[in-house]
Amino acid sequence: MAVKAQVLYDFTAEPGNNELTVQEGEILTLTNQNVGSGWVEARNSRGNVGLVPEDYIEVKTILIISFVFDFTSLFRAYCMKLENCVGLFLSIILLLSVMVILCHMAVGSVYSFDEEWDDDSDDGKSTGGYGGSQADEGGTMQRGGAHSTMKLSLNKFPGFSKTPNPEVYLLTKHISKGDDRLPIYTGEVGPVWLYPQIQLDCVVADPKKGSKMYGLKSYIEYQITPNTTNRPVNHRYKHFDWLYERLVEKFACALPIPCLPDKQVTGRFEEEFIKMRMERLQGWMSRMCRHPVISNSDVFQLFLNYRDEKEWKLGKRKAEKDEIVGVKIFSNIDPELPELDPAQVEQKYEMYSQFTRSMDNSVKELLTVGHLHWKRCTGPLQKEYRQIGKAFQNLSSVFNTSAYPREYTLTEALTATGKTYEEIAEIVAGQPKKDLHFLMETTHEYKGLLGCFPDTIAVHKAAIDKVKEADHLVVMNKISQQDKLIMEKNLSTMSYALQAEMNHFHSNRIYDYNRLVQFYLEEQVKFYETIAEKLKKALGQYTTM
Amino acid sequence: MAVKAQVLYDFTAEPGNNELTVQEGEILTLTNQNVGSGWVEARNSRGNVGLVPEDYIEVKTILIISFVFDFTSLFRAYCMKLENCVGLFLSIILLLSVMVILCHMAVGSVYSFDEEWDDDSDDGKSTGGYGGSQADEGGTMQRGGAHSTMKLSLNKFPGFSKTPNPEVYLLTKHISKGDDRLPIYTGEVGPVWLYPQIQLDCVVADPKKGSKMYGLKSYIEYQITPNTTNRPVNHRYKHFDWLYERLVEKFACALPIPCLPDKQVTGRFEEEFIKMRMERLQGWMSRMCRHPVISNSDVFQLFLNYRDEKEWKLGKRKAEKDEIVGVKIFSNIDPELPELDPAQVEQKYEMYSQFTRSMDNSVKELLTVGHLHWKRCTGPLQKEYRQIGKAFQNLSSVFNTSAYPREYTLTEALTATGKTYEEIAEIVAGQPKKDLHFLMETTHEYKGLLGCFPDTIAVHKAAIDKVKEADHLVVMNKISQQDKLIMEKNLSTMSYALQAEMNHFHSNRIYDYNRLVQFYLEEQVKFYETIAEKLKKALGQYTTM
Repeated sequence: MAVKAQVLYDFTAEPGNNELTVQEGEILTLTNQNVGSGWVEARNSRGNVGLVPEDYIEVKTILIISFVFDFTSLFRAYCMKLENCVGLFLSIILLLSVMVILCHMAVGSVYSFDEEWDDDSDDGKSTGGYGGSQADEGGTMQRGGAHSTMKLSLNKFPGFSKTPNPEVYLLTKHISKGDDRLPIYTGEVGPVWLYPQIQLDCVVADPKKGSKMYGLKSYIEYQITPNTTNRPVNHRYKHFDWLYERLVEKFACALPIPCLPDKQVTGRFEEEFIKMRMERLQGWMSRMCRHPVISNSDVFQLFLNYRDEKEWKLGKRKAEKDEIVGVKIFSNIDPELPELDPAQVEQKYEMYSQFTRSMDNSVKELLTVGHLHWKRCTGPLQKEYRQIGKAFQNLSSVFNTSAYPREYTLTEALTATGKTYEEIAEIVAGQPKKDLHFLMETTHEYKGLLGCFPDTIAVHKAAIDKVKEADHLVVMNKISQQDKLIMEKNLSTMSYALQAEMNHFHSNRIYDYNRLVQFYLEEQVKFYETIAEKLKKALGQYTTM
Repeated sequence: MAVKAQVLYDFTAEPGNNELTVQEGEILTLTNQNVGSGWVEARNSRGNVGLVPEDYIEVKTILIISFVFDFTSLFRAYCMKLENCVGLFLSIILLLSVMVILCHMAVGSVYSFDEEWDDDSDDGKSTGGYGGSQADEGGTMQRGGAHSTMKLSLNKFPGFSKTPNPEVYLLTKHISKGDDRLPIYTGEVGPVWLYPQIQLDCVVADPKKGSKMYGLKSYIEYQITPNTTNRPVNHRYKHFDWLYERLVEKFACALPIPCLPDKQVTGRFEEEFIKMRMERLQGWMSRMCRHPVISNSDVFQLFLNYRDEKEWKLGKRKAEKDEIVGVKIFSNIDPELPELDPAQVEQKYEMYSQFTRSMDNSVKELLTVGHLHWKRCTGPLQKEYRQIGKAFQNLSSVFNTSAYPREYTLTEALTATGKTYEEIAEIVAGQPKKDLHFLMETTHEYKGLLGCFPDTIAVHKAAIDKVKEADHLVVMNKISQQDKLIMEKNLSTMSYALQAEMNHFHSNRIYDYNRLVQFYLEEQVKFYETIAEKLKKALGQYTTM
């Protein structure tokens, strides 16, 4: 009986490795499940046979159905032999019952297979870096492409087109409630959020494989330990995703919520993938912790501090029912500052819009350049230094065959030189992971964050346009003069929110890039010094003349 | 009247530079001679128009002939208008006279054009490095390809096929003459030439443009100053070439004579070319000076020490009449060592043959790798570091527009970082000229030298084969037993010459490569240290947190 499997993720064979290129959804016949090292041998519908990573496929329950058909044909043959009509009738009833049971099982397993996507997507694979490993060197950098704008939840606000309509908020005369109040103060740099005394932070660590349904389904669980309680909580990727959804729903009109590390699939080494995802979840969590509004929100606190399953489930239900979402978040904002007139608001808006667009271009440039450099270091440069190393060593080998009596010192020195260049090849190839990685990861985070600004900023633009219409609406008797004043006041509040958010962004950006480039340069200095040291050592082998 | 020009050297257009690819011998029509900076605009026979370096073309005297034809048609028109038969007759005579005179001029100038090739080839252009300058980055390394085997002069020995026939020498019972005697001693490393007390050396310097024929023809003259007399002599490239021809004629059966730097054309900057040629002539002369047999020869001494034009011309004539050339050189060799039997001779021959072939492959590998590295440094790597520099500076510019009050330190530091990477780009691009250049030049010299070994070694192989035939020839009564013994003794002498020459080669090789790689590594260390220093300085601009 042939074992069938369905392909979960696209996989591109590397030439010369006896691999098979497969596409998501394709059905394969497994020809050898005992290849080992995470690979299985499979045949596709066109009859091509090759290796496929076992994580990329799901052995299909469909095989049970194919077993059923084998069973029915056997049964039919049996019946025909008997030529017994009553037997045949009974047999048909029996067969039907068996089929119902088996079909149920099959449907059940298909269901569980679907749920897998939603539920256990934390086991999916992501890119292992920026062309970093030899394995995906030929690939393109796909991460973050599709995911880099926020999923501004529109379904909660009927009538929303692309941008959430700020009218709901603009016309509301509201008083900020005590607990949810989001004050804005004047700091040294302008309007700022209220920052907590102690900055929240957390450590994402210790990824563990968990399983449920008697081991049929497995997932990765991460341990998150906040600095406030020092008590770890466990979360799967899908919980992070749930949190992200809640934060977008609640805050995204005022605060750009950066996307989670995505689920895209190009890497293939499970361990490396888990490490990379953990590192990115850590980056995301740290950024969320650093945000005074987000870190202080109920949903975020729940995520970090829940004590047991019950508290978690109750909290979840409560968060999902939260009414203060979308543009309504602005009604919580309480700038203790003089009202801005619409012209000032627009000017600020223009400035931020321009800045975030320019920075978006700039970080993209940095990523492109960094990606090229990464590939050069791990590809052609490594190869070239190896070749230089080989050339010196070959020269040494040839010299060694001269039978000339004064050869020894030079051949020894040349061999050492060759080996040094081979070491340099590996240092060069390993360097991007040491220094560029951090610069790229954080810049990539910024790219994601900057990708969220247009959505957030569009809400402000829509509000500005509404207020511009206000005079006309007053004339048309659609709103009162009082309404117009409320609108202007609310627009001012929105602007303060944006200013506070931008100042938060700037402060973080300066902190991040100062740290980032400094770290990069430190590592670069070490890199060049290490190479110089190695070459000095090789140089020492030569006789001075 | 269209100005025509003949292409002297192949020239490959660089894409996007409005240049025209032309081939040696092609006739172009000059469309603009006033382009400047050493360029002219020309049209080829296919109608393509583009820029060509003016050094690469020779304005053709053929244009005078085309003028003649213009003249005849005008004249014919004039005659037809006159309808005067006598006038026409006279005119034809006049026209014929004019044509004879002009044709004579044309032939004269064509002659001088041919002579130019022989005579003033010292003004030809050669490669400016190994893909070194930006200008010829796209080009391939052509130098030495065609030229790398010796021109073993065969015409002096009628009946020679490819390899000079050693029979002339092998059967000669000779006594080494006093003055020309080339003794071989046993040194620490085996058979060695007699080395002089003070090693001859010379400095090739001060290239000067000279001219003759009232400035119509110009050439470069180099000043060569030997350490023995410290009195400079002047020589043009063609004199070097003459010396080379004499040395090949006289010594090449016993000593590989490396070729002169060739005349191939890919560079285009006159000054750079002259510098490069001078450097290579220096390398060649130093190598010749270091050779105890060559440096002591009459012709070499003449080249370095002639006192006046008269002495030079007399010496030239004498050298050209030298009878002791080709295999006869072996009759001057006087090994004061026990005779070797043919089996020992063959064993040595095999070893040297193998070694020189292996080393030939090895230096070619080193050249290929070095060439690739050179191109990478001056091409993609430079570009990439510039891009990294630009990316940091662009980020800094964007940050500068934030209007956030705490921007200054970071933007300053980022700009400095960007500028540092731009400097690194130039350091990286300039490095090959500093270190790889020397390694490549000398390795290239070795490639040329090793390219001469097969010819020299083939003479020995032919002699070994002759001696193997000797027994048979004795039986056939073609030679006497005595002749056979003479042949074996002479073969032994040839082998000692080869051994002395190989030991000379080995000693120089070890000296050269020890010095070369040492220098290369020293410069590489400086290179990496310089970059580390620059990055440290940039790092110092960041605020520590």
